[in-house]
Amino acid sequence: MRLKLLLTGNELMTGDTVDSNSAMIATMCMDKGIQVSYKATVSDDLAQLISEIERISQTADVLIVNGGLGPTSDDLTSEALASVLDSPLQFHQGALAHLNQWCAERNYELSDANKKQALLPECVELVANTVGSAVGFKALFNGCLIICTPGVPSELDIMLKEQILPEISARLSSDIQPKRVRFRIFGFGESNLQQQITESFPDWPNEVELGFRASLPLLEVKLKVDLASHHALLELWKNKIKALLGDHIVTEDARPIAQVVVELLSKKAQKVTFAESCTGGKIASLLTEISGSSKVFEAGFVTYSNTIKVNMLGVSEADINRDGAVSEAVVRQMLGGALKKSGADVGVAVSGVAGPNGGTGEKPVGTVWLAWGREGNISAREFYFPTGRAIFQKIVSALALDLIRRELIGSVEQPAYFVSRQSK
Amino acid sequence: MRLKLLLTGNELMTGDTVDSNSAMIATMCMDKGIQVSYKATVSDDLAQLISEIERISQTADVLIVNGGLGPTSDDLTSEALASVLDSPLQFHQGALAHLNQWCAERNYELSDANKKQALLPECVELVANTVGSAVGFKALFNGCLIICTPGVPSELDIMLKEQILPEISARLSSDIQPKRVRFRIFGFGESNLQQQITESFPDWPNEVELGFRASLPLLEVKLKVDLASHHALLELWKNKIKALLGDHIVTEDARPIAQVVVELLSKKAQKVTFAESCTGGKIASLLTEISGSSKVFEAGFVTYSNTIKVNMLGVSEADINRDGAVSEAVVRQMLGGALKKSGADVGVAVSGVAGPNGGTGEKPVGTVWLAWGREGNISAREFYFPTGRAIFQKIVSALALDLIRRELIGSVEQPAYFVSRQSK
Repeated sequence: MRLKLLLTGNELMTGDTVDSNSAMIATMCMDKGIQVSYKATVSDDLAQLISEIERISQTADVLIVNGGLGPTSDDLTSEALASVLDSPLQFHQGALAHLNQWCAERNYELSDANKKQALLPECVELVANTVGSAVGFKALFNGCLIICTPGVPSELDIMLKEQILPEISARLSSDIQPKRVRFRIFGFGESNLQQQITESFPDWPNEVELGFRASLPLLEVKLKVDLASHHALLELWKNKIKALLGDHIVTEDARPIAQVVVELLSKKAQKVTFAESCTGGKIASLLTEISGSSKVFEAGFVTYSNTIKVNMLGVSEADINRDGAVSEAVVRQMLGGALKKSGADVGVAVSGVAGPNGGTGEKPVGTVWLAWGREGNISAREFYFPTGRAIFQKIVSALALDLIRRELIGSVEQPAYFVSRQSK
Repeated sequence: MRLKLLLTGNELMTGDTVDSNSAMIATMCMDKGIQVSYKATVSDDLAQLISEIERISQTADVLIVNGGLGPTSDDLTSEALASVLDSPLQFHQGALAHLNQWCAERNYELSDANKKQALLPECVELVANTVGSAVGFKALFNGCLIICTPGVPSELDIMLKEQILPEISARLSSDIQPKRVRFRIFGFGESNLQQQITESFPDWPNEVELGFRASLPLLEVKLKVDLASHHALLELWKNKIKALLGDHIVTEDARPIAQVVVELLSKKAQKVTFAESCTGGKIASLLTEISGSSKVFEAGFVTYSNTIKVNMLGVSEADINRDGAVSEAVVRQMLGGALKKSGADVGVAVSGVAGPNGGTGEKPVGTVWLAWGREGNISAREFYFPTGRAIFQKIVSALALDLIRRELIGSVEQPAYFVSRQSK
């Protein structure tokens, strides 16, 4: 199936808005086995919209037009389609009914501007918008199905899932029934994991497409087959990959690590604490972005200076002087102090050299010590991420949460944390 | 000038990569007064690349092709351009010299794959890449200047600034000398600010284009003129806007608030501390993302529960019971405790209802109290941001840093913080 996109919006042409809608459409369609083969983007210009709809529809089976459905005068998609279809604009009764209901639910008056959103080419069919005011609409033109969709991402998202994907999937031949599974994992780099899979599975089948997508700090692993007769094969290789990756799999959906940790803690009715030096509050911040975190988190300690490590967490000044702040002794004592002061069940402490300054020959920028665990059962390990300050803080914060996750699921395997030395 | 873009890359068509390059190109060109009028995106497909270059160049003065310059077999831009120009591929001596030097500087062997990056249409001119291995190149085709650029954003960025923008700006007629100024401000919403400007300046001149760009938590204000003869007018209205916005202007460049705060603290050799409840470590995290923050920040307190507010910061349990944790008395005591425990000169304390749960009739979701200042001189104020958890935390963290910024610059004006009640 030849699926093409046409995006419209002045803000897309000036650079004020980065187009994420087309990636959303492409990702969802890929999951259904349909690849977007072309996209064009134009400003809110009627002549350009008309000529692009005419041109692109000539070589497409489906053309999704995105944007230009709003109430303002620069929203021109309906007018452009009316011209292409040679079908006059008129108030569509279904669209008016939708607008009336949408306004009634919000106690709004239906304004003339909003009413304009019901002015559609006579011959179109509606595509329902269950969350916003702008209805979608569609029509056949020279054998190409043209579907006009709203630019608001949340409205596009739901319209794709509820209406458009089922409709265009039904146009695929019955043998083609793509299926895709995904894992989000922590602890492997893309090339490293690719090599492991190649080495572990020299007999990887051609029918199962393997893909990766780096979304720092996680790595997404994707397996895909196109035919219904290969679904069993997908299941088989999914399980082989699951066995290989083990507890490195954080989720099989899109939840961040912090949410997984909050859910595990809630289930066990336990509390967590953090003693942060080089991450400067980021670990606590990631956890408290999750709604419901107040049930599992009471206190975090951002101890950036040595004096504060001593005064706030009771770290031994002599140990700092002997081993330095980035050391096993110090992170163990930071965690011990944090657990005691907060009364939390489990915790993690971090001290490292985020850079760009502060590195030494023995402890270069990127060196970090983490301690994790519970009172009387604290582990510690040194890591090295010479990646630049921002990525260092991102990886180390995710690592801290992942260590808590592994503690909570009682993982006994050795994590492949990109890494070197260990101590327990 | 008709400037058009052609982007190539399989990752752009599958949705794995969101295209930010075209927004970068558009923004930089807009600053020079040139608007991108069209863009098309294709996968790494030779036939499609050829036909799109031919088609788009017919209606463009400048066509920037982005992507497809790498060393792998799906990098096809050079081959496509050779076909369009009917100019055979050959090793370009200048490009080979660049690759040899690039490899020598890194102690790499020049591989065959890398050498492919010097295989260019005979008739092109190089566009230097001062940071990466892939040279750019350009050629005239039927009066359209076609410029091929690398997909790596950092390389594109430098190539635009150093080579492409000067070249295409020089093509503008001599009278056209666009000039743009920008401010990044905190404390106004877009529509609110627009209204203020309209009311304050009913005589706003047509020659000065006014634009806004919301980049939460800041709002960017842009003024632009197109002609050299209007540069003085721009200067005049820039100063009027500066007078209107006053200390709401955080920067005239792209530094985040946290960096401005770190620089102000460094200059004054003062230290800051944070006592965070509903922001959960985000304020500290924003500050410590800035390199050099260790000189101005020693300790942060994430006191999520009431017990910890009492134990860690010495907040009165009786006051919590009487006024609730989200109250003036509590944030004042949180800040007092944090200043005392950390020894910092200045600080801010935050307690609020981030939601989605935990709101009451008196203190609905979005209510937040902030206290800021120095020992013996603490101010406090209540705010209300019913925006959803993520945006609430983002705005409140920025607000906390902005209050510190105002304290450090000794601001005496009343900030327009979207807002209601006050206490001092």
